[in-house]
Amino acid sequence: MPAAKKKPVDKFTFGLWTVGWQARDPFGDATRRALDPVEIVENLAKLGAYGVTFHDDDLIPFGSDDKARRKHVDRFKKALAATGMKVPMATTNLFTHPVFKDGAFTSNDRDVRRFALRKVMRNLDLAAELGAETYVFWGGREGAEYDGAKDVRVALDRFREAMNTLTGYCKERGIAIRFALEPKPNEPRGDILLPTIGHALAFIETLEHKEMVGLNPEVGHEQMAGLNFVHGIAQALWHGKLFHIDLNGQRGIKYDQDLVFGHGDLVSAFFLVDLLESAGYAGPRHFDYKPSRTEDLDGVWQSAAANMRMYRLLRERAAAFRADREVQQAMKQARIPELAQPTLKKGETIAQLLADKSAYETFDADKAGAGGSGYVRLQQLAVEHLMGAR
Amino acid sequence: MPAAKKKPVDKFTFGLWTVGWQARDPFGDATRRALDPVEIVENLAKLGAYGVTFHDDDLIPFGSDDKARRKHVDRFKKALAATGMKVPMATTNLFTHPVFKDGAFTSNDRDVRRFALRKVMRNLDLAAELGAETYVFWGGREGAEYDGAKDVRVALDRFREAMNTLTGYCKERGIAIRFALEPKPNEPRGDILLPTIGHALAFIETLEHKEMVGLNPEVGHEQMAGLNFVHGIAQALWHGKLFHIDLNGQRGIKYDQDLVFGHGDLVSAFFLVDLLESAGYAGPRHFDYKPSRTEDLDGVWQSAAANMRMYRLLRERAAAFRADREVQQAMKQARIPELAQPTLKKGETIAQLLADKSAYETFDADKAGAGGSGYVRLQQLAVEHLMGAR
Amino acid sequence: MPAAKKKPVDKFTFGLWTVGWQARDPFGDATRRALDPVEIVENLAKLGAYGVTFHDDDLIPFGSDDKARRKHVDRFKKALAATGMKVPMATTNLFTHPVFKDGAFTSNDRDVRRFALRKVMRNLDLAAELGAETYVFWGGREGAEYDGAKDVRVALDRFREAMNTLTGYCKERGIAIRFALEPKPNEPRGDILLPTIGHALAFIETLEHKEMVGLNPEVGHEQMAGLNFVHGIAQALWHGKLFHIDLNGQRGIKYDQDLVFGHGDLVSAFFLVDLLESAGYAGPRHFDYKPSRTEDLDGVWQSAAANMRMYRLLRERAAAFRADREVQQAMKQARIPELAQPTLKKGETIAQLLADKSAYETFDADKAGAGGSGYVRLQQLAVEHLMGAR
Amino acid sequence: MPAAKKKPVDKFTFGLWTVGWQARDPFGDATRRALDPVEIVENLAKLGAYGVTFHDDDLIPFGSDDKARRKHVDRFKKALAATGMKVPMATTNLFTHPVFKDGAFTSNDRDVRRFALRKVMRNLDLAAELGAETYVFWGGREGAEYDGAKDVRVALDRFREAMNTLTGYCKERGIAIRFALEPKPNEPRGDILLPTIGHALAFIETLEHKEMVGLNPEVGHEQMAGLNFVHGIAQALWHGKLFHIDLNGQRGIKYDQDLVFGHGDLVSAFFLVDLLESAGYAGPRHFDYKPSRTEDLDGVWQSAAANMRMYRLLRERAAAFRADREVQQAMKQARIPELAQPTLKKGETIAQLLADKSAYETFDADKAGAGGSGYVRLQQLAVEHLMGAR
Repeated sequence: MPAAKKKPVDKFTFGLWTVGWQARDPFGDATRRALDPVEIVENLAKLGAYGVTFHDDDLIPFGSDDKARRKHVDRFKKALAATGMKVPMATTNLFTHPVFKDGAFTSNDRDVRRFALRKVMRNLDLAAELGAETYVFWGGREGAEYDGAKDVRVALDRFREAMNTLTGYCKERGIAIRFALEPKPNEPRGDILLPTIGHALAFIETLEHKEMVGLNPEVGHEQMAGLNFVHGIAQALWHGKLFHIDLNGQRGIKYDQDLVFGHGDLVSAFFLVDLLESAGYAGPRHFDYKPSRTEDLDGVWQSAAANMRMYRLLRERAAAFRADREVQQAMKQARIPELAQPTLKKGETIAQLLADKSAYETFDADKAGAGGSGYVRLQQLAVEHLMGAR
Repeated sequence: MPAAKKKPVDKFTFGLWTVGWQARDPFGDATRRALDPVEIVENLAKLGAYGVTFHDDDLIPFGSDDKARRKHVDRFKKALAATGMKVPMATTNLFTHPVFKDGAFTSNDRDVRRFALRKVMRNLDLAAELGAETYVFWGGREGAEYDGAKDVRVALDRFREAMNTLTGYCKERGIAIRFALEPKPNEPRGDILLPTIGHALAFIETLEHKEMVGLNPEVGHEQMAGLNFVHGIAQALWHGKLFHIDLNGQRGIKYDQDLVFGHGDLVSAFFLVDLLESAGYAGPRHFDYKPSRTEDLDGVWQSAAANMRMYRLLRERAAAFRADREVQQAMKQARIPELAQPTLKKGETIAQLLADKSAYETFDADKAGAGGSGYVRLQQLAVEHLMGAR
Repeated sequence: MPAAKKKPVDKFTFGLWTVGWQARDPFGDATRRALDPVEIVENLAKLGAYGVTFHDDDLIPFGSDDKARRKHVDRFKKALAATGMKVPMATTNLFTHPVFKDGAFTSNDRDVRRFALRKVMRNLDLAAELGAETYVFWGGREGAEYDGAKDVRVALDRFREAMNTLTGYCKERGIAIRFALEPKPNEPRGDILLPTIGHALAFIETLEHKEMVGLNPEVGHEQMAGLNFVHGIAQALWHGKLFHIDLNGQRGIKYDQDLVFGHGDLVSAFFLVDLLESAGYAGPRHFDYKPSRTEDLDGVWQSAAANMRMYRLLRERAAAFRADREVQQAMKQARIPELAQPTLKKGETIAQLLADKSAYETFDADKAGAGGSGYVRLQQLAVEHLMGAR
Repeated sequence: MPAAKKKPVDKFTFGLWTVGWQARDPFGDATRRALDPVEIVENLAKLGAYGVTFHDDDLIPFGSDDKARRKHVDRFKKALAATGMKVPMATTNLFTHPVFKDGAFTSNDRDVRRFALRKVMRNLDLAAELGAETYVFWGGREGAEYDGAKDVRVALDRFREAMNTLTGYCKERGIAIRFALEPKPNEPRGDILLPTIGHALAFIETLEHKEMVGLNPEVGHEQMAGLNFVHGIAQALWHGKLFHIDLNGQRGIKYDQDLVFGHGDLVSAFFLVDLLESAGYAGPRHFDYKPSRTEDLDGVWQSAAANMRMYRLLRERAAAFRADREVQQAMKQARIPELAQPTLKKGETIAQLLADKSAYETFDADKAGAGGSGYVRLQQLAVEHLMGAR
C-alpha cells in the first residue's frame, strides 16, 4: 500500500465491525472468517475511504493484557500510517460480554457500572492517541424487557452520572474529544433508554458539560420506530448537536437490518443527503452497515464500495434538484421561502399583533384555506431528479 | 343536577370532543348526533368525573361572533356551576379548518401563522376565565407528507417563535397557566414535528419561558411509534415536565385508535398507573379517547365510565403489587434498589476510581456476568397481581 | 373533448373517488369541492388515462331513486362515449353509511347483510352495463376492534355465503365479470378480516365458484402490515389470482396514506413494475391514491399525471435493468436461474434421492456454505438502473 | 425421576431449544451454559410438562456420524421413558449452518436443496421412532433481503416440490405424521416466504397431499406484522388447519422477542385461550419462547413454569367470562349469535332475495344504522374477567 496515495475527497468512514462482521445472526452461525483490522484498513484505503472507526474490543480482544493491547494498537497504527487512513471516531463495546446483559452505565449491579466507566476511560485514552475527534456512546444494553425491571428515572440518574464522570475524565486528562450519543428504540433490549434522537437531545440538556455532548443518529434506528430520519436530523442540526452520523439502510419497522446506505428507503436517503450537504455538515459520512450474510469477502468489499457510490450519486442528484429552475419555482409556489420569514414583524409587540385586524377579525380563513401548495408536484420533481429523469 | 353532589375523589377528566365524537372516520359518516356541551357536562358529572376540557371550537363554533361566543360560554359556565365540574385544561383547534391544512404555527403561509396565534390568544383568555391550569398544544397539522415540502429547521424556528409569543402573551396578561405540548408521530400528517416525548422535551429547552412549558403525552401517540409509554412518562417526570396526561388505549402500530384506557396494552397500562401513583403525579387523569363508532349514546356513557373503572382497578392492583413481600424480595434479588446507589462513592474523584483495582484490573467479568436477575419471575408476579391472581 | 382522441397505449385507470377525494380526514374538513363524475372523466381522458372505475355511491348518491339513478348513469355513459374512456372495474360502497358500521357481509345484523347483498347486486347490473370486467370487494368494515365482538369463524361463514350468493347471481344473470377481493389489515376497523393477500387467497379456495374470484391487492395495504408487496404479488400471480391491482404509495406502517405511486417505497415500486411487466400482467394499472389534502384542483390533476409518469419511468428503468449484461451475469453468479431447475432430477424417485450419496453423505456443507451470492452488488445494479445511473 | 409420576392433565410442551437457549443474541455472547437434553427432559417433567419437542441438531450435533447419533437418541429415549414425557412434535434445523444462508428448500443452489430434503427425511425417521404426530416446517431462511435476489414464483415452485417430496416420503415409508408450516414475516431474512398464516394456508391448497399439511402459527410471528393473532387462529381453525400452535409473547412490531406466553399482549392472550378452549383444539399447547438473556438457570425454570401458569390462569378467566350471565346478555345485545344465522333463508333463491322488498326497497338504512352494539361494554366485561375483577 503506497503512502503516496492521493487524499480522499470525501470523509467516508467505516467501522471495523461493519466489513468485519462475520454474519452471525440470532438464528445462524458465522458465514465469514474474522478479518484482521490491518487487512480492513488496507482494503478500505484501496476503495478510497477516508478512515476507520472501532470499538475497543474490535481492535483488542476483551481481556487482553497491556502487552497484547500495545501490540494490537501498534500494528493498527502502522497500517494507518501506511495508508493515510484516519480514525475520526471510536467507541466502546458495552454489550457483547454477558457482564453487560442488564446494561453498563445503568446495570442494576453497581460493580458493573464501575467496570463500564473504567472500560470507557481506557479506550478514551486510545481514542485520543489515535486522534479521534468523536467518541460514540450506543447504549444498546441500557434498557429492559419488562417495565418492572428498571426504574427509568433512577436509570437516567445513573446514565447522567456516567456521562458527567466521563466528560470530567476528558477535561481532567485534556482529551479534546466530543461525545455523541447514538439512540435506538429496541434490540437487543425490549426497550432501550433514550430511544430516539429526541429523547437523547433532551437528556443532553441535563448534563454538566452539555456542550461536549451531541448525537450520532443512525438511519435505521430512527426508522425502526417509524420516524422520519430527515426530520430527526433536521432537529438535531437545529439544536447544534449533529456531531456524527451513521448511514445505512432499513426496510421498515422490523429488526435492525443495517443494509447499504440507499438500499432501504431511497427517497429518504435522497433528502437526507440533500439536507446534510445544504446544511454544510462537515463531519464524517460514517457507514454503519452490515454486508448481508449471503455475501463472501468479495461481496463485502463490493458492498463497502456501494455505500460510497450511493452517497456520491445522491449528492449529485440533490444538487441538480436544488439547481433546477422549475424546482425553485415550485418551492416558491409552495411558499417554502416564506416560512423563513418571522411570523411577527420585526419589533412587533403582542399589543400590535392584537391590534392587527387583518390577522384575525378580517382574515378570510376560507379563502386562505382554498389555495394549493403543489407539494405533490414538488415531490414528483424530486423523485425525477433522484431517478435522473430530468 | 343537584349542586350538593359530593366532590369526586379522583381527578378524572374528559374532553368535550371525546364523548362528543360523532364517529366520522376516513371512510365513514357520523353515526351519532352532536352532543350539546351542557349535556356532556351533566352526564360526566353524573358518572363522577372531576372535570371537562375543550378545544375552542368544541364550545364555540368556528367563526362565531362575540355575542354568540358569550352565549355559548355562559351556558357552559352555568352547567359547570350547577354540577361542580372543573375545567382544568383547554386547548385550540388548529387542525379542522382547511386553513390549517399545511400547519398553523408552521404553515408556510405567514398569514395563517398570525391567525393561528390570534386564535390561541383568544382561547387563552377563555381558558383563564374558566380557571384552566394547563393549556395543551397538539400540533397535529405541523408536519409534512414530503421531505421537500418543509424545511424542518426553519419550521422549528417558527414553532419556537409561536411558543415564545404565547408565553409572552400570558406573562403580559397575567394569565397563570402552564403550556403542555402533545407529541404525535403522524396522522393526520405523514410526519408530524416533535413526534415523540423526547423531541418535545428537547424543543422546550430552547424556549424563552421554558419553565412554563411541559408535556401532555398520550398513550396511543407514543405507541404509534412502537415506543414504551411507561419509559416515556418516566423520562418526562425525570425532566420535571409531566404537566398533564392523555390516557387511552392503542393496539399496536397503526392509525390512532383512541380506545378506552386499558383496552389496548393492558400490562403497560398497569405499569403506567403504578408509575403515576408512585411518582405522586398530582394532575388530572385525562381520558382522551373515542367511543367506538359502533356505539350509540348508551355505549358512549358506558365507555366513559369504563375508563374511570379501569384506572381505579389498575391503581388497586399496582398498590397490591408494591405491597407484596415476595415482590419486594424479587426486586431486591434483581438489585433494583441498587440502581439508586450512585456509581461513584460520595466524593470519589476520578483519580480514586482509576486507582480502584477492584473496579477494573481485578474485576471478574465472567463471574459478574453469570448471575441472574429474575426479571421474568418479577414480571410474572406483576401479571398475577394485574390479574388479581395473588 | 374530441372523440377522435388516439387510444391510450397504457391501461392506466383511476377511481372516481381518487381525484374526486375532497380531502376530509379524521381531523379535518374537506379542502376541495366535489367533482362531477363527468368532469373527472373528461380531465382524466385529457391526461391520457385509459379508463375510470367507481363505487356505486360515487356515481349515484346513496338513496337515489331509479329515475335519478338513470340520469346519473346516462350522463356518465355519454361522457365515456365522448372521450373513449373505459370502465374496466366497478365496486360497491359498503362502508360510508352508518348502517355498515359493524360490517356489511359480516354485520352481526342479518338485515344489514341482506341489504348489502342487494346493494352489490344492483351495482353488478350497472357494472355489466358499463362493460366492467372486474368487480372489486374491499371489505373495509368487515372486522372488529375487540376480539370478543365477532366470532371470526362464523363471520367467515357469512363472508363465504355472500361471495357464493354473488357469484351465483352473476351466473344466473349471465354477467361475465370476475370478482377481486382487496385485502387490508386495519383502518377503519381495528382489525379487518382477510387482512393480507395470503388470507384472501386461502379464503378463495373455499368458494363455490372459486375460478371467478381473485385479488385486487393494493400497495399500501400490504405495506401497512410491513409485508413485501412484490412478494405478495408474486404469490398472487403464482396462484393465478392477480385479477386487478391498486397502485399507490405508502411510507411505512401507519395510517393508509394513498400517496402517488412511487412516492412511497421507490425501490419496491421499481421491482413491482419489473414483476408486472415480466410476468405479462395484462390488466389495468389502477391508481388508487389520494391527492394530498394540501393540493387544490391543479394539484389534483398534476398528481394524477404523476402516477402515470412514475409507472412509465419505472417500466423503462426495469427494462434497462433486465437488458444489462452485467446484471444478467450477476444474476447468473447468484444462481438465480438455477432456482428454476427442479430439485429432483426428472423422474427421480425418493429411493433414488436417498441413494444419492452426493446429496447427503458426501455433501460438503462447509464448502457449499462458503460461497457468496453477490446479492448486494445485484441490488446496487438495480438501484443504479432505477436512478438512471448506468 | 420416578416412572410412577402422575400423568399431566394439560398438554404443555416445550422445545429443547427454548429452555436450552444459551442467550446468544445479535449483539451478545451466550450468558448460559448448554443444557443436556436429558437434563431438560427431567426438569420439564418435574415442572409438570407433558412433553418436549426438538430440532434434529438440538439432539444430535450437526455432522454427527451414525454411531454418535444413536447414542444421543438412546439417552434421550431413556429419559423420556423414565419421566413419561412425550415427543408430540419434531422439526428440522434448516437455518443455523452457513449452508442454509440463502434458504434450504428454496436456496438458489440446487445441491443445498437436495441436502435439505435429505436432512429432513433423516429426522422424519427419528420423529416417527419417537412417536411424534406433527412435524413442523419453519422456513426461516426461505426468503430474501432484496427483491431482485429471488424469483418468488419460482421459489414457491421449489417450496411446493419440497413439500410434495416430503409428504411422498412419509407415504412411502408409512410414517403417520402431519406437517405443520410455521409462518413468519421476517428475521432472520429481510422478508420470509409464506409470511403469515394466510399465505401459508393458500400455499397448502396447491400441495399434492394437502390433507397432510396444516399450520403451526406462533403468537409473536403474526404480531410482528401487526396482525391479530386471534383472528389468524380463527381463520386457521375455519380451514381445519390448526395442527399445532406456538405460544409466546411479543410486545409490538419489532424483533422476535419470544417472551413468556401472556407477557406480551395480555388481552389477546386471553381471547386466544378462550378461542382454543371453546373451539376444542386438542393439540399440544407448545411454548416456543426464550428465557430472557438476563436470567440464570433458576430463572429459566421459573420462566418455563410461568408459561404454564399463564395458560391455566387465562383458561380459568375465559371460562368465567363465558359463564357470566351479564356477558351472555351483552353478547346477545351485540347480536353476536345472530351472525351464526345464514343471511339467506334456508332454501331461499336469489330470485326470492331480489323479490324481498324489505331487504332493499323498504329497508330503513338510517334506522338500522342508529343502533348500538355495546362492544365497548363487552370488552370491559372481558377485561374485568381477565383481571379477576368480577
